[in-house]
Amino acid sequence: MADGIEIERKFLVDGLPRDLDWLDERALRQGYVALDGDTEVRVRDDDGSWRLTIKHGGGRRRVEEDMEVDTRRGEALWDLTEGRRVEKRRRRIAYGAAMVEVDEYEGDLRGLLVAEVEFDDEAASDAFAPPDWFGPEVTEDDRYKNRALAVDGRPA
Amino acid sequence: MADGIEIERKFLVDGLPRDLDWLDERALRQGYVALDGDTEVRVRDDDGSWRLTIKHGGGRRRVEEDMEVDTRRGEALWDLTEGRRVEKRRRRIAYGAAMVEVDEYEGDLRGLLVAEVEFDDEAASDAFAPPDWFGPEVTEDDRYKNRALAVDGRPA
Repeated sequence: MADGIEIERKFLVDGLPRDLDWLDERALRQGYVALDGDTEVRVRDDDGSWRLTIKHGGGRRRVEEDMEVDTRRGEALWDLTEGRRVEKRRRRIAYGAAMVEVDEYEGDLRGLLVAEVEFDDEAASDAFAPPDWFGPEVTEDDRYKNRALAVDGRPA
Repeated sequence: MADGIEIERKFLVDGLPRDLDWLDERALRQGYVALDGDTEVRVRDDDGSWRLTIKHGGGRRRVEEDMEVDTRRGEALWDLTEGRRVEKRRRRIAYGAAMVEVDEYEGDLRGLLVAEVEFDDEAASDAFAPPDWFGPEVTEDDRYKNRALAVDGRPA
């Protein structure tokens, strides 16, 4: 995501039509090395490129420090995330003026499909008419955040 | 410390004689960004040089990943360690065949003085006759470990 304001909407997807014209595809996985109050330490493998992120939210201080780590270190830290992981295949597709990312979860969350749409402004977000293969909107549902999915698993 | 087996003994110090012939001195501080079970994420400033360490102990997995971070990032992470910090001035002195490190704590732990002596082997450790300015030995006292000092403060 670019810096600045993000406007995103998130939808469940029941099943994907066969004829979608994907722009690209990559494998993503992230896991939580430590969760301590408002601080999270996570490691992420974006198609073979590893990053370590320390994020603190809530309260007056907001910190997000993100750094590249080499594969050996990334994998060593990944070992510490067992039971707190999200693994998915991310594909992108253009839909009208919007870019849609579809995450197909793997591992413990296999079967979950979520589409995220990013908008330039509120007007575009409000005007968005979801394609018919989108299911219920879950933009405001915290259970579908990465951390919640990793820790609590797939919402019932 | 070098890799391999460390043999160390730790002693409280009530007060330092004035005439000690220090070899060197540096400022150390470390704080805990996240503590989560057997995993700790800490940031350390060794006289202006910052490192981030993720350590997991206990159980069958032991991981210690240590990486340099720049000053801006070190200080940003330091902000997250409030209330879980150890700050000290470390001085070294030779004593017989042994190297003695004396840590004079600052900040919340001000007043605490601890000497650590490192040995090459068990025989040297057993034969060590502490100088008269050493107080009680606390080698086996977990309350004097960095993490305990940072979280629980000075032992009563």
